[in-house]
Amino acid sequence: MRIDLNADLGEGFGPWTMGEDEALMPLISSANVACGFHAGDPLIMDSTVRRAKALGIDLGAHVGFPDLQGFGRRRMNIELKELCAILVYQLGALAGIAAAAGYRVTHMSFHGALGNMAAADAELAGPLVRAVAAFDPQLIISSSSSAAIESAAEACNLRVATTFLADRAYDENCLLVPRGIAGAVVRDPEQVRARVAQLLQDGTVTTLSGKRVAVNAQSILLHGDTPGAVELARSIRQSIEEQGGVITPVSQLLGS
Amino acid sequence: MRIDLNADLGEGFGPWTMGEDEALMPLISSANVACGFHAGDPLIMDSTVRRAKALGIDLGAHVGFPDLQGFGRRRMNIELKELCAILVYQLGALAGIAAAAGYRVTHMSFHGALGNMAAADAELAGPLVRAVAAFDPQLIISSSSSAAIESAAEACNLRVATTFLADRAYDENCLLVPRGIAGAVVRDPEQVRARVAQLLQDGTVTTLSGKRVAVNAQSILLHGDTPGAVELARSIRQSIEEQGGVITPVSQLLGS
Amino acid sequence: MRIDLNADLGEGFGPWTMGEDEALMPLISSANVACGFHAGDPLIMDSTVRRAKALGIDLGAHVGFPDLQGFGRRRMNIELKELCAILVYQLGALAGIAAAAGYRVTHMSFHGALGNMAAADAELAGPLVRAVAAFDPQLIISSSSSAAIESAAEACNLRVATTFLADRAYDENCLLVPRGIAGAVVRDPEQVRARVAQLLQDGTVTTLSGKRVAVNAQSILLHGDTPGAVELARSIRQSIEEQGGVITPVSQLLGS
Amino acid sequence: MRIDLNADLGEGFGPWTMGEDEALMPLISSANVACGFHAGDPLIMDSTVRRAKALGIDLGAHVGFPDLQGFGRRRMNIELKELCAILVYQLGALAGIAAAAGYRVTHMSFHGALGNMAAADAELAGPLVRAVAAFDPQLIISSSSSAAIESAAEACNLRVATTFLADRAYDENCLLVPRGIAGAVVRDPEQVRARVAQLLQDGTVTTLSGKRVAVNAQSILLHGDTPGAVELARSIRQSIEEQGGVITPVSQLLGS
Repeated sequence: MRIDLNADLGEGFGPWTMGEDEALMPLISSANVACGFHAGDPLIMDSTVRRAKALGIDLGAHVGFPDLQGFGRRRMNIELKELCAILVYQLGALAGIAAAAGYRVTHMSFHGALGNMAAADAELAGPLVRAVAAFDPQLIISSSSSAAIESAAEACNLRVATTFLADRAYDENCLLVPRGIAGAVVRDPEQVRARVAQLLQDGTVTTLSGKRVAVNAQSILLHGDTPGAVELARSIRQSIEEQGGVITPVSQLLGS
Repeated sequence: MRIDLNADLGEGFGPWTMGEDEALMPLISSANVACGFHAGDPLIMDSTVRRAKALGIDLGAHVGFPDLQGFGRRRMNIELKELCAILVYQLGALAGIAAAAGYRVTHMSFHGALGNMAAADAELAGPLVRAVAAFDPQLIISSSSSAAIESAAEACNLRVATTFLADRAYDENCLLVPRGIAGAVVRDPEQVRARVAQLLQDGTVTTLSGKRVAVNAQSILLHGDTPGAVELARSIRQSIEEQGGVITPVSQLLGS
Repeated sequence: MRIDLNADLGEGFGPWTMGEDEALMPLISSANVACGFHAGDPLIMDSTVRRAKALGIDLGAHVGFPDLQGFGRRRMNIELKELCAILVYQLGALAGIAAAAGYRVTHMSFHGALGNMAAADAELAGPLVRAVAAFDPQLIISSSSSAAIESAAEACNLRVATTFLADRAYDENCLLVPRGIAGAVVRDPEQVRARVAQLLQDGTVTTLSGKRVAVNAQSILLHGDTPGAVELARSIRQSIEEQGGVITPVSQLLGS
Repeated sequence: MRIDLNADLGEGFGPWTMGEDEALMPLISSANVACGFHAGDPLIMDSTVRRAKALGIDLGAHVGFPDLQGFGRRRMNIELKELCAILVYQLGALAGIAAAAGYRVTHMSFHGALGNMAAADAELAGPLVRAVAAFDPQLIISSSSSAAIESAAEACNLRVATTFLADRAYDENCLLVPRGIAGAVVRDPEQVRARVAQLLQDGTVTTLSGKRVAVNAQSILLHGDTPGAVELARSIRQSIEEQGGVITPVSQLLGS
C-alpha cells in the first residue's frame, strides 16, 4: 500500500519562525507551503521550495485569507470574484518561485478559515476549484474529506487527494469532529500511530462514537507546529514502513 | 517604422483608484501592471489582465518594493537574495492571474525606487535580471536606457525593450535628467508630441543642453496619472500614425 | 436649534486619495478621521488633524477593521478581546497625533462592517464601548440610531451623539434601511435638503413606507466621497442656516 | 548605586512569538514595547502593558520603521515629516493601550535601522526628538550613547536615559562597535557579568582595544531573544544586587 505523508510548512513570516520545517521535511513526501497571505513570505517560500526540490518531495500551495495577523484563521467576508483572484495570485506566486528554482507545484490546499468555509459550502467551493483549474488543470487538490470540494473538482476534472488527519476524531459521516468538542483532538502519540495502522490495514477509522467507518485517504497530514511533532512524524513514518506501506508523493499516487 | 506605446496601469489598491486605465488602455500596445507590492491587488490585477487580453495588447509585470504606503518610491535596503525572491513572487503572481484568464505575460519592468536603483547599479541589476531569466527566459525586460540592465540582460540572453520617456529631459549620455533639475519634466503637450515626432523621424532626442543625440527606443512610455494624460496619449498616438508609424506590442517588435 | 455637521475624512492611503477633504472641511463642524486600519495613514492623519485644529472643528476617531484592501467593509471574525485592543490602538494613535499637534480628540465612531456589527449586537457593542470609556471617559460616541450602542454607552456614562443620515431611508423603528433595498439611498439633492429641513423643523423623518416618525439626532452625516458631495454639503449648510439653525461642533452640543 | 534593567519586549506578531517575555519581565525594571510597525500588534501590546503594570515596571514605546517583514532592520528612505508622524502614531497607540489599562508610558526608544540612523544623524534626530517632546514633554528618551540624540533632547528639555549594552563592545569614543567587526558581540556570560560589575564599580567599560573609558549609563539593556537570555538576565540581576546595586525603573532614576 502506498500513502503520502504531507505537512503544512513555510509558516514563518519575516523574522518569525513556526514549526520545525528542517527536521520535518525529510520525513514527508509532500510539502504544503504558505504563500504569503496568512503566513510565509517570498524568502521563506524560496528556501522551502529549494529544500523540497533537494529532497524530491511534492510541492503544494497552501492558500489562505489575506490576514497575517490572524494567521488566516478568522473568517472574512470577501466577495467571491475577489476571493478567486486572491487564490490565483497565491498559486501563481508559489509557481513563480518554483519555476525560478527549477521546480514545479503539484498540488494545492485551502488553509484555516478559508478551508473550513470551502469544505462546507458548495457555493464557495465551486468557483474556487474552477479558479484552480483555470490556473492549472494538472494541479491536485489536497483536502480532508469534503463533498463540496470533491464534487466541484470532479465537475472540472481536477484530481483530489483526500487527507487523513491522524490526530483528529471523525464522525460517522467521515467528517472531522469540530475542535470545540471533547475528544476532537487525539493527543496520545500511541493512539495516533494506532489510527494510522488501522487506516493502512483495513482502510477504516474508529469514530468518536466507537464505530468503524471506511475512510478514503491518499495522504496523511502531519502537524508541524505541535510539541513533539517531529518525533511523532518519525514514528508514524516508521510504523507505515513496518507494515509494508510505501511513502509516496501525492502526484505519483494519483497518476496524471 | 514600428513602435510600442506602453503605460503603467493597475495602480489602484482596494477602494482606491489611480489613473484613467479604462480610457488609456485602448490607446496603448503594452500594459505594465502593478503586482500588489507597491500598488495593485489581486482583483485589480485580474480585471486589468482581462482587459489587456480583450484588447490584444501586451501584458507586463511592473515590479516594485514591498511598500504600498510609499508607492514603491522609497529606497529600501533589502538583501539581494530576498529582493530576488520578492521580484519572482510578483512575476509569478501576475503570470498566475494571466494563466487563469487564458493570457500570458510578455515583459516586465522595475518600478520606482527599485527601478532607479537597478538602472544605476550593476551589482543589483545582475542578480535581479538573472532572477527574471530563471523565472521565464522568454520575458522581455522593458527599461529606460541603462547600461547596467542592458548588459545584465545580454549576459543571460534576455531581450530588452528600451523605453523613451517623451515627457522627460535627457542628458548627453542619453540618461534621464533627474526630476529635481529644472526642465527635467516636459509639461507642454505640443513639445511632447514634437519629441515623439523627432524620435520617429530621425531617432534622436534633443538634450536639455540643446544637442541632438541618437536614441535607441522600441517603446514610448505614457504616464497615466497626470492630468490630461488620456488626451496626450491620444494625440501622440495620432501623431505616430500620421507619420506612418505602426503601433506594435513590444513582443512583436522584438521577435523571439 | 443647534446641530452638528460631520463627515468621514482622511480616507486616503499613501499615494491614494479619497473624497474632497479640503473643500468639505470648512463646511462641517466635526471631522471623523480614519486611523490607519481601514484607511488613513500617519501623514494623512497628521495633516487632517492640523486642518481640523485650524478650522476649530471637532476631531473624532473613525475606527475600523484591520483591512485596508477591503476598506473595513468586510466582516471579520475577530475575538472580542483582540477587537477591543484594535479599537484602543486606533483611538490612541489619533489622540497621539492630535496631542503632538496641540489638539484633542472629542469623539469616536465605528466604521463600515465594524459599525454595522456593533450597532446590531449588544454582545459586541458592550465591550467595545467599555473599551472606549476605559481609554477616555470624556469621549463622545457618534453613531446612527442603535439601541445596542446607546445602552452600552449609558452603562458606562459615555455621551452619545446620534447621527442622522440625510441621504439614507429609515424604517418605522428609526433604523437605516439596508442599502440593498430599493429606495434605501436618497440620491436627489432636493430631497436630501427637504429631509434636513424636516428634521430641523419638527424632529421627524418620513420613513420609506411614508410615515412620519420622531428622530433623535444631534448631528447630520455628510458623505464626502460621492459625486457632488461638496455642493450638497454647501446647500445643506445653507438651508440649516436659513432656518435659523446654528451649526455647532458635537462636543459643544452635548456639554461635558 | 541605582541602575535600571530594561529589555525590548512584545516583539511577536499575530500567531508568532519572539523572546521569552514572561520569564524576562519579572527580572527587569523597564519594558520597551514594540508598537505594531516593526513588531507587535494591539493584542500583544495590551497583554504586555498589563503585565508591566502588574509588575510595577516602567513602560516604554519601542518605535520602528513600518516594515514587519524586515523587523524594522532595513533602512527606509522616508521623508522626515512622514517619519515624525509615523513615530507619533506609535507613541499614541501604546499610550492609548496603556491608558485603557490604567497605566502610563514613561519612556521611548528607537528600534533597529531607525535607531541606528537617528543616533548617527543630527538632522534626523532633531525633528524626531522634537516630535517626541510635542507628543509628551514628560517622556524619557532611552538610547545608547549618541551625541545626536542627547543634544536634540537637551534642546527641547527631554530627559535621556543612556543605556549600556553589556554584551556589545565599545570603542574609545564610547560608541558601539558595529556588529560586523570581530569581537563586537560579547557572547561569554561570565564576561558580560564582569562588564556589568565594572560599570557599577567604577563607571567604566574596557574598549575593544583594551582601554578603560568612562561610561555614562542609567540603564542596562538585556537582549531577550538570544538563547540563554533569561539565565543571563537572572545572573546579571543577582550580580548587581550582590554589589549593593538597586534595580530601579528609569523614571525613578531620572526624577521629573
